[in-house]
Amino acid sequence: MSGALLEALRAAVGAAQVLTEGDLSAYELDWRRRWRGRALAVVRPASTDEVALVVRACAAHGASVVPQGGNTGLVGGGVTDASGTQVLLSTARMCRVRGIDAANSTITVDAGCVLQAVQRSAEAAGFLFPLSLAAEGSCTIGGNLATNAGGTQVLRFGNARELCLGLEVVNAQGDVWDGLTGLRKDNTGYDLRDLMIGSEGTLGIITAATMKLFPQPAARVTALAACHDLGACVELLKLAQQRLGPALTGFEVMEAFSLALVARHFGQLPRPLPPAPWTVLLEASDSDGEQAARSRFQALLETALERGLVFDAAVAESIAQSRALWHLRESIPLAQAEEGPNIKHDIALPVSAIADFVAHTDAALIRAFPGARLVNFGHLGDGNLHYNLQAPDTVPPQEFLARHEHAVNTIVYDAVTARGGSISAEHGIGALKRDELAARKSAVALGMMRAIKLALDPKGTLNPGRVL
Amino acid sequence: MSGALLEALRAAVGAAQVLTEGDLSAYELDWRRRWRGRALAVVRPASTDEVALVVRACAAHGASVVPQGGNTGLVGGGVTDASGTQVLLSTARMCRVRGIDAANSTITVDAGCVLQAVQRSAEAAGFLFPLSLAAEGSCTIGGNLATNAGGTQVLRFGNARELCLGLEVVNAQGDVWDGLTGLRKDNTGYDLRDLMIGSEGTLGIITAATMKLFPQPAARVTALAACHDLGACVELLKLAQQRLGPALTGFEVMEAFSLALVARHFGQLPRPLPPAPWTVLLEASDSDGEQAARSRFQALLETALERGLVFDAAVAESIAQSRALWHLRESIPLAQAEEGPNIKHDIALPVSAIADFVAHTDAALIRAFPGARLVNFGHLGDGNLHYNLQAPDTVPPQEFLARHEHAVNTIVYDAVTARGGSISAEHGIGALKRDELAARKSAVALGMMRAIKLALDPKGTLNPGRVL
Repeated sequence: MSGALLEALRAAVGAAQVLTEGDLSAYELDWRRRWRGRALAVVRPASTDEVALVVRACAAHGASVVPQGGNTGLVGGGVTDASGTQVLLSTARMCRVRGIDAANSTITVDAGCVLQAVQRSAEAAGFLFPLSLAAEGSCTIGGNLATNAGGTQVLRFGNARELCLGLEVVNAQGDVWDGLTGLRKDNTGYDLRDLMIGSEGTLGIITAATMKLFPQPAARVTALAACHDLGACVELLKLAQQRLGPALTGFEVMEAFSLALVARHFGQLPRPLPPAPWTVLLEASDSDGEQAARSRFQALLETALERGLVFDAAVAESIAQSRALWHLRESIPLAQAEEGPNIKHDIALPVSAIADFVAHTDAALIRAFPGARLVNFGHLGDGNLHYNLQAPDTVPPQEFLARHEHAVNTIVYDAVTARGGSISAEHGIGALKRDELAARKSAVALGMMRAIKLALDPKGTLNPGRVL
Repeated sequence: MSGALLEALRAAVGAAQVLTEGDLSAYELDWRRRWRGRALAVVRPASTDEVALVVRACAAHGASVVPQGGNTGLVGGGVTDASGTQVLLSTARMCRVRGIDAANSTITVDAGCVLQAVQRSAEAAGFLFPLSLAAEGSCTIGGNLATNAGGTQVLRFGNARELCLGLEVVNAQGDVWDGLTGLRKDNTGYDLRDLMIGSEGTLGIITAATMKLFPQPAARVTALAACHDLGACVELLKLAQQRLGPALTGFEVMEAFSLALVARHFGQLPRPLPPAPWTVLLEASDSDGEQAARSRFQALLETALERGLVFDAAVAESIAQSRALWHLRESIPLAQAEEGPNIKHDIALPVSAIADFVAHTDAALIRAFPGARLVNFGHLGDGNLHYNLQAPDTVPPQEFLARHEHAVNTIVYDAVTARGGSISAEHGIGALKRDELAARKSAVALGMMRAIKLALDPKGTLNPGRVL
């Protein structure tokens, strides 16, 4: 049975691109090292037609396919299970920029293009492609779309979904849907594009996409601001939105302990402001020049100081300083890893509920787990916190995680659910949060999702056991 | 049979809200007077629970439901057929603003809220709700979402879809899906929201929505610019996007004959520029003051004059003048109606293909129908033209339409399809374009759409015969 399937796969993509032996952990082991799968084979198609042949072969033989981009996902959605029966389809060889339409401000790329390559192609043509996230050097645009990735520019430009105009998809029957439109408006039937985006390879395999491009801003200015509490950060966000409108392109918050961890593990990084309860990283982009951007930004911060929202602030004086500020922010997850294993949450809340959520949940966690250390940072402008927890430094972290992770999650997710929030803001569901989704999503929504999955993939060919 | 259903409907919404007699043409006749349906009854629920009861009653009795908002749709999607067996569900009584969350910049409204009422509620709370279109005084937000409405602010703010964060929907089984989230990020399963948006009441009945609000701009500046050809308009768009970035909030084009019709039928309207082959209406919104906005705008137009993209321009000097410019643009469809029956197209193209499309299609139409008069205007910034055709003035228009409408559509839609365009940019499919959709959409896309319809509405309870 599996022999015949392997034959069909070799016929589809060539024997050299059907990997069954040797160390396949680059594909089978996820980036967080939480899921180690075993695949029947890793196949590496070079084209959309080859993807279609692979899916047809799997469907014909009753096997399932797990699509994988850069294998940087955080929820175990892109690795096979341990059964040894699933086919892992890597899009790594599909990495062509198909074209840039400058007059239409769009770029069309293969799904396997690395995000950074898409950014650079756009830049070379005089455009900005704004999707930006920590894994951009290895994640792929196909994976970004399959998980509806977020990142640091969502406040202004939206998630991956909002940046996508058209898709090419191989569906569960191995048919190619050519929806690669570069149109800004198209009301011809159901929104298959947005249904595919964020479905984590369970409804179709994205093979190419047409994405929006934007004019490059003439100037970017970055600043740090120190706030006494999270409520003041929310007020500052509101003021910045009023004053800067769409020129506000970044608004990140960092609680004191998250920056203390950076200082502990990356002491060489400059800290332009002394420690504060909360530090905000603001970024403004401007189509006028540097000078205009800077003076608007300074006026904003002065008002914030006068109103007591901020008690200290520093504006980056150069691109290098600006990068250093972003580097501080981006070093938090790395500092967390240095500090030891930890429990991550990727939650979203209405911005109006965030301060209350944090006050309530901090207290509940400390009560339940004295000495637990909260590492709280994230994209406040999007209502998205990475609300993480490091074990008390008196306890071996692996032991703490093994014993308490579920109870920690329950406290956090109950508080999120009570406030109308989301248990997965930008990372998706995958394997990690599948049970939480089943337990917390409304029965009506789950019923519709299951009906759609069954309608589009009745044989369960595409990434079964993920999401639903 | 129908007696028992009427009883159940009366039990659901009260006898006074089940209309079966008298003149029901306000509901049964569409705004364009192209479709005159006959309903078993018009029901006017006052709440989501009542909508659910109505759908359950219809499903139980094997009847179907046609949801209707303000009855301003242009494609016959919101009126019953002539069978006398369908139930028309009007959301007119569901018009409560459920709440504004100022700190989260969101508004939650019943589906039957008139668009203008939503705009005004936002304004009263100090916000901008940017969705804006000709029918805003009578269309409803539920209808706007069911059809994914566009309008004049799409360039900056997107279609209705991009403005929506959460929905409440009654599905085909009469269950209520509470997806009324105000979250900017939520990757928990399939994107049911965007699937419902634009599905024209065939997958669910939208009963409420949470929409994004924006800061009010400090200033808005409007201008007219005269161009020699459409290619120059496209170049001007590009320049304006580079210079103004997201501050560019409107970019409308009007071909000479469309403004000549306005002059003929509304001679009292001031024309700040002499006739030109193409006239562009530009709008910039700015979070800085009036002065800054105006000087940036003037610098843009000076560059455009220097580069020969524009040969004349006039910037509005007051809010009244600004309104007068928009009024010119908005008078085109009314002037067309005064001129007589005509053939409308609502097409989208990649911006890069528009000039070629118009040159080709103008020539083809004039060749096929000598004397036909093209009324070409639209949202160039979105690649969306209302590419309409008025009968030759030597022929009775009704006769011309009856004889040639199909052939005209074929020429236009073939040219659109050949250039990767859309036959419905912002109006939807409804009854009008159902056959065109079936003929022109790819079989793979249609297959997936039909599978979704069958999965979510297996009995065909919701607006059957529309879209698919």
